[in-house]
Amino acid sequence: MNEQHFDFTVEAERGQARSGTFTTPHGDVETPAFMPVGTIATVKALDPHDLEKMGATMILANAYHLHLRPGDDLVHEMGGLHQFMRWHGPMLTDSGGFQVFSLEGLRKISEDGVEFQSHIDGSRRFFTPESVIGIERNLGADVIMQFDHVIPGQSNEPEARDASERSIRWASRSLKEFKRTSPPDGENQALFPIVQGGIHAHLRNEAARALIEMNDWRGFAIGGLSVGEEKPAMYEILDQMSETLPRERPRYLMGVGFPEDVIEGIKRGVDLFDCVAPTRMGRNGTVFTATGRLNIKRAEFRNDPRPLDETCDCETCTRFSRAYIRHLFVSEEILGHRLLSLHNVHFLLSLARTARNEIAGGSLDTWSADWLARYNSTTSKK
Amino acid sequence: MNEQHFDFTVEAERGQARSGTFTTPHGDVETPAFMPVGTIATVKALDPHDLEKMGATMILANAYHLHLRPGDDLVHEMGGLHQFMRWHGPMLTDSGGFQVFSLEGLRKISEDGVEFQSHIDGSRRFFTPESVIGIERNLGADVIMQFDHVIPGQSNEPEARDASERSIRWASRSLKEFKRTSPPDGENQALFPIVQGGIHAHLRNEAARALIEMNDWRGFAIGGLSVGEEKPAMYEILDQMSETLPRERPRYLMGVGFPEDVIEGIKRGVDLFDCVAPTRMGRNGTVFTATGRLNIKRAEFRNDPRPLDETCDCETCTRFSRAYIRHLFVSEEILGHRLLSLHNVHFLLSLARTARNEIAGGSLDTWSADWLARYNSTTSKK
Repeated sequence: MNEQHFDFTVEAERGQARSGTFTTPHGDVETPAFMPVGTIATVKALDPHDLEKMGATMILANAYHLHLRPGDDLVHEMGGLHQFMRWHGPMLTDSGGFQVFSLEGLRKISEDGVEFQSHIDGSRRFFTPESVIGIERNLGADVIMQFDHVIPGQSNEPEARDASERSIRWASRSLKEFKRTSPPDGENQALFPIVQGGIHAHLRNEAARALIEMNDWRGFAIGGLSVGEEKPAMYEILDQMSETLPRERPRYLMGVGFPEDVIEGIKRGVDLFDCVAPTRMGRNGTVFTATGRLNIKRAEFRNDPRPLDETCDCETCTRFSRAYIRHLFVSEEILGHRLLSLHNVHFLLSLARTARNEIAGGSLDTWSADWLARYNSTTSKK
Repeated sequence: MNEQHFDFTVEAERGQARSGTFTTPHGDVETPAFMPVGTIATVKALDPHDLEKMGATMILANAYHLHLRPGDDLVHEMGGLHQFMRWHGPMLTDSGGFQVFSLEGLRKISEDGVEFQSHIDGSRRFFTPESVIGIERNLGADVIMQFDHVIPGQSNEPEARDASERSIRWASRSLKEFKRTSPPDGENQALFPIVQGGIHAHLRNEAARALIEMNDWRGFAIGGLSVGEEKPAMYEILDQMSETLPRERPRYLMGVGFPEDVIEGIKRGVDLFDCVAPTRMGRNGTVFTATGRLNIKRAEFRNDPRPLDETCDCETCTRFSRAYIRHLFVSEEILGHRLLSLHNVHFLLSLARTARNEIAGGSLDTWSADWLARYNSTTSKK
């Protein structure tokens, strides 16, 4: 199983929320934690040095994208993801379920797997739970995700049941393949299953229980949320999962990373988050601040000497003015993307770290209420 | 005159080549030196931190570009270029002569100045030697350049004479305006005149002598080279300038920065260089190496585990493989631009530093012959 280097310790609890340490072969992750996303083995516009300096501990990459380009065989030949992209800390690869099921064009779903067309060259590909384990073995991240069946957030019960039950069967096949194979280069890997079931609490509970019975997993992922459903529906599912999933294992809420959702997730016992929003929105000029979002391209910032966020101690805010960063964006300069990505990723990392401290200090509820009130005061206006 | 904080000391000489120290209000520049170009107040794809770590001492920005966007008034309002872009070392602004005379479309040259259309919005603008001094005062760089009349490299004698003589008259008007005005915020600035004259040695000599007679300048620029003329013609002019320009003032060869040209320039007594090539070529995938140029996008580098340049100690070469950087370029990732720009700028900075040491050590000729032979061995083949 090669999972002996994984551990999770809950250190403090506050309601459903908890702080802890997730141990992996490449180091410890203090939770709750936000994981920056490096889809194709680079967190867009940032350098691994930047991530280290910001205190990122664990980052993501994507099996679907890396399989298509440059190819997981190549990454393996180059020594695996850690060596290839020079990230020495913990890593996780998503299986590509979300990507495959989001693709336009040809897509044939069968019990065996999914046939789809590469978004790069249109070539036909076939993913099965087993083949995806092979890809993730080649990539060599610490945590690897099962191939799952992802559906839109508002899917009805029969559709959600079909996808959820298939995902459970695929978890079983993934586990079998995981046990049959070895990690590359003597590295240790852990396989996480993904709980699906849409916004239907009973399906989610059934899925979680089936997975718990299947194996003593090192951790559990909650997938298929923040994909179009209403926020209260997501929060209700998280409340349910907090009760059903084992307390002593980390819980990873996939693809969720807007500040307000991170806080609501932490309050409901989530330990790990990831989202492309900080870098994607950064490239569009959108900035997270303690008093809400702003878009740096707006004319009002033309001669604004203030930092993006006056409460922030990131590399961007301690050096540059809104006026300068707006100039970079208006002129389409790469440094603009870098500076906003630095700030936004730091913002999410810092938010999760602060929440962690508030859990330990016993003041999560007051802090989170205050934080959300301040954050929403401006966001709702703009 | 506000030029009391400028000084230049020649420390070692080897033939026409010399090493020295150029002192400015924002620090010393050990010469020969390569100055990275931050046209619109950012050295493309790099962070000021990167430049500091690489040992860049002096950088450029461009008056034409910054006047159009974000406006020199805004830069002044934001505390000047140093504060705006957070570069705390010496800076130089080019006047925009090269840009204005390279523009497509409407351009009317008169003795008074040049009417042209903004490349951003097509608006009509008028630059005079005096107005450009005003712009450069607002920007607040340490060294500011006169507005000059730049012509193509192969221009005939009458055309070259016309432009050269106009540039001399404009130097005189620039100087008058420079003396009449004050630098912003109590900063000190020095005005450099630009020697023009195309590939006609007698015109270059006449121009240099006229400028020397006009004022005790803190330094001299040689403009209008590397603009389409043959390389031997450029080297001949540099030999001439080395004899004519005063030994005790720094000589800045404008817009020249290919590795081979930097070496040939240093051998002919040039102290300062600038060029967009390292960053522009970096964005296109072209890499300078000790054995010549290579393009990282070529298929042969797909699984090449070596650094870009095995003799290089830059942040890119000490961390990343050609295979990874090729992957970033093929995938059009911003980090690829950053890593190649880091390497190429470091390459030029390091080349000038090495030449400086070789001058002091008395072995410039042997070293430069060896260096060029190795560099040309591959470049000529690809």
